[in-house]
Amino acid sequence: MDGFQKNDRNRARRGHQRAAYDADTVYRILDSHFLCHVGFEIAGQPHVIPTSYWREGNRLYWHGSSASHMVRHLSGGNPATVCVTHLDGLVLARSAFNTSVNYRSVVCFGVPELVTEEAEFDRQMELFFDQLAPARWHQLRPLTAQERKATGLLVMEIEDASAKVRTGGPGDGDEADWPVWAGHVDIHTVTGTSHDAPEGARSPLSHGVLPAFHREL
Amino acid sequence: MDGFQKNDRNRARRGHQRAAYDADTVYRILDSHFLCHVGFEIAGQPHVIPTSYWREGNRLYWHGSSASHMVRHLSGGNPATVCVTHLDGLVLARSAFNTSVNYRSVVCFGVPELVTEEAEFDRQMELFFDQLAPARWHQLRPLTAQERKATGLLVMEIEDASAKVRTGGPGDGDEADWPVWAGHVDIHTVTGTSHDAPEGARSPLSHGVLPAFHREL
Repeated sequence: MDGFQKNDRNRARRGHQRAAYDADTVYRILDSHFLCHVGFEIAGQPHVIPTSYWREGNRLYWHGSSASHMVRHLSGGNPATVCVTHLDGLVLARSAFNTSVNYRSVVCFGVPELVTEEAEFDRQMELFFDQLAPARWHQLRPLTAQERKATGLLVMEIEDASAKVRTGGPGDGDEADWPVWAGHVDIHTVTGTSHDAPEGARSPLSHGVLPAFHREL
Repeated sequence: MDGFQKNDRNRARRGHQRAAYDADTVYRILDSHFLCHVGFEIAGQPHVIPTSYWREGNRLYWHGSSASHMVRHLSGGNPATVCVTHLDGLVLARSAFNTSVNYRSVVCFGVPELVTEEAEFDRQMELFFDQLAPARWHQLRPLTAQERKATGLLVMEIEDASAKVRTGGPGDGDEADWPVWAGHVDIHTVTGTSHDAPEGARSPLSHGVLPAFHREL
Protein backbone atom coordinates (compact mmCIF):
# COMPACT_ATOMS: atom_id res chain seq x y z
CA MET A 1 0.00 0.00 0.00
CA ASP A 2 1.23 3.50 -0.82
CA GLY A 3 -0.42 5.45 1.92
CA PHE A 4 -3.49 6.30 3.93
CA GLN A 5 -6.20 8.66 2.72
CA LYS A 6 -6.57 11.82 4.74
CA ASN A 7 -10.04 12.16 6.23
CA ASP A 8 -11.81 13.63 9.24
CA ARG A 9 -10.54 10.91 11.54
CA ASN A 10 -6.81 10.89 10.84
CA ARG A 11 -6.15 14.35 9.39
CA ALA A 12 -3.71 16.41 11.48
CA ARG A 13 -5.47 19.68 12.13
CA ARG A 14 -2.58 21.31 13.97
CA GLY A 15 1.07 21.14 13.03
CA HIS A 16 0.14 19.70 9.63
CA GLN A 17 3.64 20.40 8.33
CA ARG A 18 4.79 17.62 10.70
CA ALA A 19 2.21 15.12 9.47
CA ALA A 20 2.73 12.18 7.11
CA TYR A 21 0.32 9.66 5.67
CA ASP A 22 2.58 7.42 3.61
CA ALA A 23 2.74 3.76 4.58
CA ASP A 24 6.55 3.75 4.69
CA THR A 25 6.73 6.42 7.41
CA VAL A 26 3.83 4.92 9.38
CA TYR A 27 5.20 1.36 9.25
CA ARG A 28 8.78 2.42 10.05
CA ILE A 29 7.63 4.14 13.26
CA LEU A 30 5.41 1.19 14.18
CA ASP A 31 8.24 -1.29 13.59
CA SER A 32 10.75 0.44 15.84
CA HIS A 33 8.80 0.13 19.09
CA PHE A 34 6.80 -2.52 20.88
CA LEU A 35 4.84 -0.41 23.39
CA CYS A 36 1.59 1.17 22.28
CA HIS A 37 -1.40 2.79 23.97
CA VAL A 38 -4.78 1.37 22.97
CA GLY A 39 -7.80 3.64 23.26
CA PHE A 40 -11.39 2.43 23.36
CA GLU A 41 -14.66 3.53 24.87
CA ILE A 42 -17.15 1.67 27.02
CA ALA A 43 -20.51 3.30 27.67
CA GLY A 44 -19.20 6.81 27.10
CA GLN A 45 -16.08 6.33 29.22
CA PRO A 46 -12.74 6.50 27.35
CA HIS A 47 -10.08 3.99 28.37
CA VAL A 48 -6.37 3.95 27.50
CA ILE A 49 -4.25 0.87 28.15
CA PRO A 50 -0.52 0.43 27.50
CA THR A 51 0.43 -2.88 25.94
CA SER A 52 2.95 -4.49 23.62
CA TYR A 53 2.12 -4.91 19.93
CA TRP A 54 3.57 -5.95 16.60
CA ARG A 55 2.74 -5.45 12.91
CA GLU A 56 2.36 -7.73 9.94
CA GLY A 57 1.43 -6.09 6.63
CA ASN A 58 -1.31 -3.55 7.27
CA ARG A 59 -2.40 -5.24 10.49
CA LEU A 60 -1.54 -4.57 14.13
CA TYR A 61 -1.58 -7.34 16.73
CA TRP A 62 -1.66 -7.25 20.53
CA HIS A 63 -2.74 -9.63 23.22
CA GLY A 64 -4.08 -9.70 26.73
CA SER A 65 -5.86 -11.94 29.15
CA SER A 66 -8.97 -13.45 27.54
CA ALA A 67 -10.88 -12.32 30.62
CA SER A 68 -9.72 -8.70 30.43
CA HIS A 69 -12.08 -5.81 29.84
CA MET A 70 -10.02 -4.77 26.83
CA VAL A 71 -9.97 -8.12 25.04
CA ARG A 72 -13.63 -8.79 25.67
CA HIS A 73 -14.71 -5.33 24.50
CA LEU A 74 -12.45 -5.31 21.45
CA SER A 75 -13.55 -8.79 20.37
CA GLY A 76 -17.04 -7.43 19.88
CA GLY A 77 -16.77 -5.24 16.79
CA ASN A 78 -15.92 -2.04 18.67
CA PRO A 79 -13.51 0.61 17.34
CA ALA A 80 -10.03 1.09 18.75
CA THR A 81 -7.25 3.59 18.34
CA VAL A 82 -3.63 2.53 18.70
CA CYS A 83 -1.02 5.20 19.39
CA VAL A 84 2.75 4.64 19.30
CA THR A 85 5.05 7.41 20.49
CA HIS A 86 8.84 7.70 20.45
CA LEU A 87 10.09 10.50 22.70
CA ASP A 88 13.26 11.72 20.94
CA GLY A 89 14.20 14.98 22.61
CA LEU A 90 13.37 18.19 24.40
CA VAL A 91 13.49 21.41 22.37
CA LEU A 92 14.45 24.39 24.52
CA ALA A 93 13.52 27.55 22.65
CA ARG A 94 13.98 31.18 23.72
CA SER A 95 10.26 31.49 24.44
CA ALA A 96 7.82 29.22 26.24
CA PHE A 97 5.64 29.26 23.14
CA ASN A 98 8.32 27.74 20.89
CA THR A 99 9.49 25.21 23.47
CA SER A 100 8.68 21.77 22.16
CA VAL A 101 9.42 18.06 22.08
CA ASN A 102 11.03 15.97 19.36
CA TYR A 103 9.04 12.84 18.70
CA ARG A 104 7.80 10.30 16.18
CA SER A 105 4.22 9.17 16.68
CA VAL A 106 1.59 7.22 14.80
CA VAL A 107 -2.13 6.91 15.39
CA CYS A 108 -3.99 3.98 13.80
CA PHE A 109 -7.74 3.50 13.62
CA GLY A 110 -9.66 0.29 13.08
CA VAL A 111 -11.97 -2.36 14.49
CA PRO A 112 -10.10 -5.28 16.11
CA GLU A 113 -11.09 -8.93 15.93
CA LEU A 114 -10.07 -11.98 17.91
CA VAL A 115 -7.64 -14.44 16.30
CA THR A 116 -9.20 -17.82 17.00
CA GLU A 117 -7.36 -20.19 14.67
CA GLU A 118 -4.61 -22.02 16.60
CA ALA A 119 -1.96 -22.20 13.84
CA GLU A 120 -2.37 -18.47 13.14
CA PHE A 121 -2.25 -17.73 16.88
CA ASP A 122 1.07 -19.58 17.18
CA ARG A 123 2.49 -18.01 14.01
CA GLN A 124 1.68 -14.52 15.30
CA MET A 125 3.17 -15.17 18.73
CA GLU A 126 6.35 -16.30 17.02
CA LEU A 127 6.40 -13.12 14.93
CA PHE A 128 6.04 -11.12 18.15
CA PHE A 129 9.00 -12.89 19.74
CA ASP A 130 11.07 -12.48 16.58
CA GLN A 131 10.95 -8.74 17.11
CA LEU A 132 11.89 -8.83 20.78
CA ALA A 133 14.33 -11.71 20.98
CA PRO A 134 14.96 -13.48 17.65
CA ALA A 135 15.35 -17.26 17.72
CA ARG A 136 14.09 -17.40 21.30
CA TRP A 137 10.64 -18.72 20.39
CA HIS A 138 11.85 -22.22 19.59
CA GLN A 139 13.94 -22.38 22.76
CA LEU A 140 10.96 -21.78 25.03
CA ARG A 141 8.80 -24.31 26.78
CA PRO A 142 5.94 -24.65 24.23
CA LEU A 143 2.52 -23.07 24.73
CA THR A 144 -0.10 -25.25 26.37
CA ALA A 145 -3.76 -25.46 25.38
CA GLN A 146 -4.68 -23.78 28.65
CA GLU A 147 -2.31 -20.88 27.98
CA ARG A 148 -3.73 -20.36 24.48
CA LYS A 149 -7.21 -20.33 25.96
CA ALA A 150 -6.20 -17.77 28.58
CA THR A 151 -4.69 -15.46 25.96
CA GLY A 152 -6.81 -13.22 23.77
CA LEU A 153 -4.96 -12.25 20.59
CA LEU A 154 -6.41 -9.25 18.78
CA VAL A 155 -5.78 -8.24 15.16
CA MET A 156 -6.70 -4.84 13.74
CA GLU A 157 -6.59 -3.97 10.05
CA ILE A 158 -5.33 -0.38 9.90
CA GLU A 159 -8.18 1.51 8.25
CA ASP A 160 -6.69 4.98 8.71
CA ALA A 161 -3.38 6.12 10.07
CA SER A 162 -1.28 9.22 10.34
CA ALA A 163 2.22 9.93 11.56
CA LYS A 164 3.64 13.06 13.14
CA VAL A 165 7.35 13.71 13.36
CA ARG A 166 9.32 16.59 14.84
CA THR A 167 13.11 16.73 14.68
CA GLY A 168 15.85 19.31 15.21
CA GLY A 169 16.24 22.53 17.12
CA PRO A 170 13.87 25.32 18.11
CA GLY A 171 12.13 27.47 15.50
CA ASP A 172 12.82 30.76 17.21
CA GLY A 173 12.72 32.78 14.02
CA ASP A 174 14.00 36.27 14.63
CA GLU A 175 14.48 35.93 18.37
CA ALA A 176 17.99 34.54 18.17
CA ASP A 177 19.40 37.49 20.14
CA TRP A 178 17.32 36.81 23.27
CA PRO A 179 20.02 36.14 25.89
CA VAL A 180 19.31 32.55 26.86
CA TRP A 181 20.78 29.30 25.63
CA ALA A 182 18.62 27.55 23.06
CA GLY A 183 18.93 24.17 21.43
CA HIS A 184 17.70 20.64 21.86
CA VAL A 185 18.59 17.70 24.07
CA ASP A 186 18.32 14.14 22.75
CA ILE A 187 16.33 11.55 24.66
CA HIS A 188 17.07 7.86 24.09
CA THR A 189 15.34 4.69 25.18
CA VAL A 190 18.05 2.09 25.69
CA THR A 191 18.59 -1.35 27.14
CA GLY A 192 20.71 -1.62 30.28
CA THR A 193 21.86 -4.43 32.52
CA SER A 194 20.75 -8.04 32.00
CA HIS A 195 19.83 -9.83 35.23
CA ASP A 196 20.00 -13.63 35.46
CA ALA A 197 17.00 -15.28 37.03
CA PRO A 198 18.14 -16.63 40.42
CA GLU A 199 17.76 -20.27 39.41
CA GLY A 200 18.65 -22.12 36.23
CA ALA A 201 20.99 -21.47 33.33
CA ARG A 202 23.42 -18.57 33.54
CA SER A 203 23.27 -15.85 30.95
CA PRO A 204 24.43 -16.59 27.42
CA LEU A 205 23.15 -13.11 26.54
CA SER A 206 25.12 -10.01 25.91
CA HIS A 207 23.41 -6.73 25.20
CA GLY A 208 21.41 -6.77 22.04
CA VAL A 209 18.37 -8.82 22.89
CA LEU A 210 16.02 -6.07 21.79
CA PRO A 211 16.24 -5.60 18.03
CA ALA A 212 13.27 -3.24 18.22
CA PHE A 213 15.45 -0.77 20.11
CA HIS A 214 18.36 -1.28 17.78
CA ARG A 215 16.19 0.00 14.99
CA GLU A 216 16.68 3.42 16.64
CA LEU A 217 13.68 3.61 18.93
CA MET B 1 -5.57 12.58 50.03
CA ASP B 2 -4.83 9.01 51.09
CA GLY B 3 -5.92 7.19 48.00
CA PHE B 4 -8.48 6.56 45.32
CA GLN B 5 -11.56 4.42 45.85
CA LYS B 6 -11.68 1.27 43.79
CA ASN B 7 -14.71 1.20 41.50
CA ASP B 8 -15.83 -0.18 38.15
CA ARG B 9 -13.84 2.42 36.26
CA ASN B 10 -10.40 2.15 37.81
CA ARG B 11 -10.36 -1.34 39.35
CA ALA B 12 -7.68 -3.60 37.88
CA ARG B 13 -9.47 -6.76 36.81
CA ARG B 14 -6.36 -8.60 35.68
CA GLY B 15 -3.03 -8.68 37.47
CA HIS B 16 -4.63 -7.15 40.55
CA GLN B 17 -1.59 -8.10 42.64
CA ARG B 18 0.29 -5.44 40.63
CA ALA B 19 -2.30 -2.73 41.23
CA ALA B 20 -2.14 0.18 43.67
CA TYR B 21 -4.63 2.89 44.50
CA ASP B 22 -2.75 4.96 47.07
CA ALA B 23 -2.09 8.58 46.18
CA ASP B 24 1.62 8.30 47.00
CA THR B 25 2.24 5.60 44.36
CA VAL B 26 0.01 7.30 41.78
CA TYR B 27 1.60 10.74 42.27
CA ARG B 28 5.16 9.40 42.32
CA ILE B 29 4.67 7.75 38.92
CA LEU B 30 2.97 10.86 37.51
CA ASP B 31 5.76 13.12 38.78
CA SER B 32 8.59 11.18 37.18
CA HIS B 33 7.48 11.60 33.57
CA PHE B 34 6.18 14.37 31.37
CA LEU B 35 4.72 12.41 28.45
CA CYS B 36 1.19 11.10 28.74
CA HIS B 37 -1.42 9.69 26.37
CA VAL B 38 -4.82 11.39 26.56
CA GLY B 39 -7.86 9.35 25.55
CA PHE B 40 -11.21 10.84 24.61
CA GLU B 41 -14.11 9.99 22.35
CA ILE B 42 -15.87 12.02 19.70
CA ALA B 43 -19.10 10.64 18.25
CA GLY B 44 -18.23 7.03 19.08
CA GLN B 45 -14.66 7.24 17.76
CA PRO B 46 -11.90 6.85 20.38
CA HIS B 47 -8.88 9.13 20.04
CA VAL B 48 -5.49 8.89 21.77
CA ILE B 49 -3.04 11.80 21.66
CA PRO B 50 0.45 11.95 23.17
CA THR B 51 1.24 15.20 24.95
CA SER B 52 3.26 16.63 27.81
CA TYR B 53 1.61 17.14 31.20
CA TRP B 54 2.31 18.08 34.78
CA ARG B 55 0.60 17.69 38.17
CA GLU B 56 -0.31 20.03 41.00
CA GLY B 57 -2.10 18.49 43.97
CA ASN B 58 -4.82 16.17 42.68
CA ARG B 59 -4.99 17.90 39.31
CA LEU B 60 -3.32 17.15 35.98
CA TYR B 61 -2.54 19.88 33.46
CA TRP B 62 -1.73 19.75 29.76
CA HIS B 63 -1.95 22.19 26.90
CA GLY B 64 -2.41 22.34 23.17
CA SER B 65 -3.39 24.69 20.42
CA SER B 66 -6.67 26.46 21.26
CA ALA B 67 -7.88 25.44 17.81
CA SER B 68 -7.07 21.73 18.24
CA HIS B 69 -9.72 19.05 18.24
CA MET B 70 -8.52 17.87 21.63
CA VAL B 71 -8.64 21.24 23.40
CA ARG B 72 -11.99 22.17 21.94
CA HIS B 73 -13.56 18.82 22.79
CA LEU B 74 -12.10 18.65 26.29
CA SER B 75 -13.15 22.22 27.11
CA GLY B 76 -16.76 21.14 26.75
CA GLY B 77 -17.40 18.97 29.78
CA ASN B 78 -16.38 15.69 28.13
CA PRO B 79 -14.57 12.88 29.98
CA ALA B 80 -10.89 12.12 29.43
CA THR B 81 -8.49 9.40 30.47
CA VAL B 82 -4.82 10.18 30.98
CA CYS B 83 -2.33 7.32 30.91
CA VAL B 84 1.34 7.59 31.89
CA THR B 85 3.65 4.62 31.25
CA HIS B 86 7.28 4.03 32.18
CA LEU B 87 8.81 1.14 30.26
CA ASP B 88 11.36 -0.31 32.70
CA GLY B 89 12.43 -3.65 31.26
CA LEU B 90 11.81 -6.80 29.32
CA VAL B 91 11.20 -10.00 31.27
CA LEU B 92 12.41 -13.07 29.39
CA ALA B 93 10.83 -16.13 30.95
CA ARG B 94 11.24 -19.77 29.99
CA SER B 95 7.78 -19.82 28.41
CA ALA B 96 6.01 -17.38 26.11
CA PHE B 97 3.18 -17.21 28.60
CA ASN B 98 5.36 -15.90 31.44
CA THR B 99 7.30 -13.49 29.23
CA SER B 100 6.46 -9.98 30.35
CA VAL B 101 7.44 -6.35 30.63
CA ASN B 102 8.52 -4.37 33.68
CA TYR B 103 6.66 -1.08 33.87
CA ARG B 104 5.06 1.55 36.04
CA SER B 105 1.80 2.95 34.74
CA VAL B 106 -1.04 5.14 35.95
CA VAL B 107 -4.48 5.72 34.51
CA CYS B 108 -6.44 8.80 35.64
CA PHE B 109 -10.09 9.57 34.93
CA GLY B 110 -11.81 12.93 35.04
CA VAL B 111 -13.51 15.74 33.14
CA PRO B 112 -11.10 18.50 32.04
CA GLU B 113 -11.82 22.22 32.00
CA LEU B 114 -10.13 25.15 30.34
CA VAL B 115 -7.97 27.44 32.51
CA THR B 116 -9.06 30.92 31.50
CA GLU B 117 -7.63 33.16 34.23
CA GLU B 118 -4.39 34.77 33.02
CA ALA B 119 -2.46 34.77 36.32
CA GLU B 120 -3.31 31.10 36.87
CA PHE B 121 -2.35 30.30 33.27
CA ASP B 122 1.07 31.88 33.78
CA ARG B 123 1.58 30.23 37.17
CA GLN B 124 0.84 26.81 35.70
CA MET B 125 3.14 27.31 32.72
CA GLU B 126 5.91 28.21 35.15
CA LEU B 127 5.20 25.04 37.16
CA PHE B 128 5.47 23.04 33.93
CA PHE B 129 8.84 24.56 33.09
CA ASP B 130 10.07 24.04 36.65
CA GLN B 131 9.78 20.31 36.05
CA LEU B 132 11.56 20.29 32.72
CA ALA B 133 14.21 22.98 33.12
CA PRO B 134 14.17 24.72 36.50
CA ALA B 135 14.84 28.46 36.57
CA ARG B 136 14.49 28.66 32.80
CA TRP B 137 11.03 30.25 32.88
CA HIS B 138 12.28 33.66 33.98
CA GLN B 139 15.07 33.63 31.40
CA LEU B 140 12.68 33.23 28.49
CA ARG B 141 11.19 35.90 26.30
CA PRO B 142 7.86 36.47 28.11
CA LEU B 143 4.55 35.17 26.79
CA THR B 144 2.57 37.54 24.60
CA ALA B 145 -1.20 38.05 24.71
CA GLN B 146 -1.44 36.41 21.29
CA GLU B 147 0.48 33.32 22.48
CA ARG B 148 -1.78 32.96 25.53
CA LYS B 149 -4.81 33.18 23.27
CA ALA B 150 -3.40 30.52 20.94
CA THR B 151 -2.74 28.13 23.84
CA GLY B 152 -5.49 26.08 25.44
CA LEU B 153 -4.52 25.01 28.96
CA LEU B 154 -6.59 22.14 30.34
CA VAL B 155 -6.91 21.12 34.00
CA MET B 156 -8.40 17.81 35.14
CA GLU B 157 -9.25 16.96 38.72
CA ILE B 158 -8.32 13.30 39.15
CA GLU B 159 -11.62 11.65 40.07
CA ASP B 160 -10.34 8.07 39.95
CA ALA B 161 -6.89 6.66 39.38
CA SER B 162 -5.03 3.42 39.60
CA ALA B 163 -1.40 2.42 39.24
CA LYS B 164 0.10 -0.83 38.01
CA VAL B 165 3.70 -1.77 38.66
CA ARG B 166 5.74 -4.82 37.67
CA THR B 167 9.37 -5.23 38.71
CA GLY B 168 11.94 -8.02 38.83
CA GLY B 169 12.53 -11.26 37.02
CA PRO B 170 10.27 -13.88 35.48
CA GLY B 171 7.78 -15.86 37.57
CA ASP B 172 8.62 -19.22 36.06
CA GLY B 173 7.64 -21.21 39.12
CA ASP B 174 8.74 -24.81 38.79
CA GLU B 175 10.11 -24.53 35.26
CA ALA B 176 13.57 -23.42 36.31
CA ASP B 177 15.17 -26.46 34.70
CA TRP B 178 13.94 -25.65 31.19
CA PRO B 179 17.23 -25.21 29.27
CA VAL B 180 17.04 -21.60 28.18
CA TRP B 181 18.42 -18.47 29.76
CA ALA B 182 15.86 -16.51 31.76
CA GLY B 183 16.03 -13.16 33.44
CA HIS B 184 15.22 -9.54 32.78
CA VAL B 185 16.83 -6.71 30.87
CA ASP B 186 16.52 -3.13 32.12
CA ILE B 187 15.25 -0.41 29.82
CA HIS B 188 16.12 3.21 30.58
CA THR B 189 14.94 6.50 29.15
CA VAL B 190 17.88 8.89 29.32
CA THR B 191 19.01 12.27 28.06
CA GLY B 192 21.84 12.34 25.53
CA THR B 193 23.70 15.04 23.64
CA SER B 194 22.77 18.73 23.91
CA HIS B 195 22.78 20.54 20.55
CA ASP B 196 23.27 24.31 20.42
CA ALA B 197 20.86 26.20 18.19
CA PRO B 198 22.87 27.42 15.19
CA GLU B 199 22.57 31.08 16.13
CA GLY B 200 22.81 32.91 19.45
CA ALA B 201 24.36 32.12 22.82
CA ARG B 202 26.54 29.02 23.15
CA SER B 203 25.57 26.33 25.59
CA PRO B 204 25.97 26.96 29.32
CA LEU B 205 24.22 23.61 29.80
CA SER B 206 25.74 20.36 30.81
CA HIS B 207 23.66 17.23 31.10
CA GLY B 208 21.00 17.48 33.68
CA VAL B 209 18.40 19.77 32.21
CA LEU B 210 15.64 17.25 32.70
CA PRO B 211 14.90 16.78 36.37
CA ALA B 212 11.88 14.68 35.46
CA PHE B 213 14.24 12.02 34.16
CA HIS B 214 16.53 12.33 37.13
CA ARG B 215 13.65 11.27 39.30
CA GLU B 216 14.28 7.78 37.90
CA LEU B 217 11.97 7.78 34.92
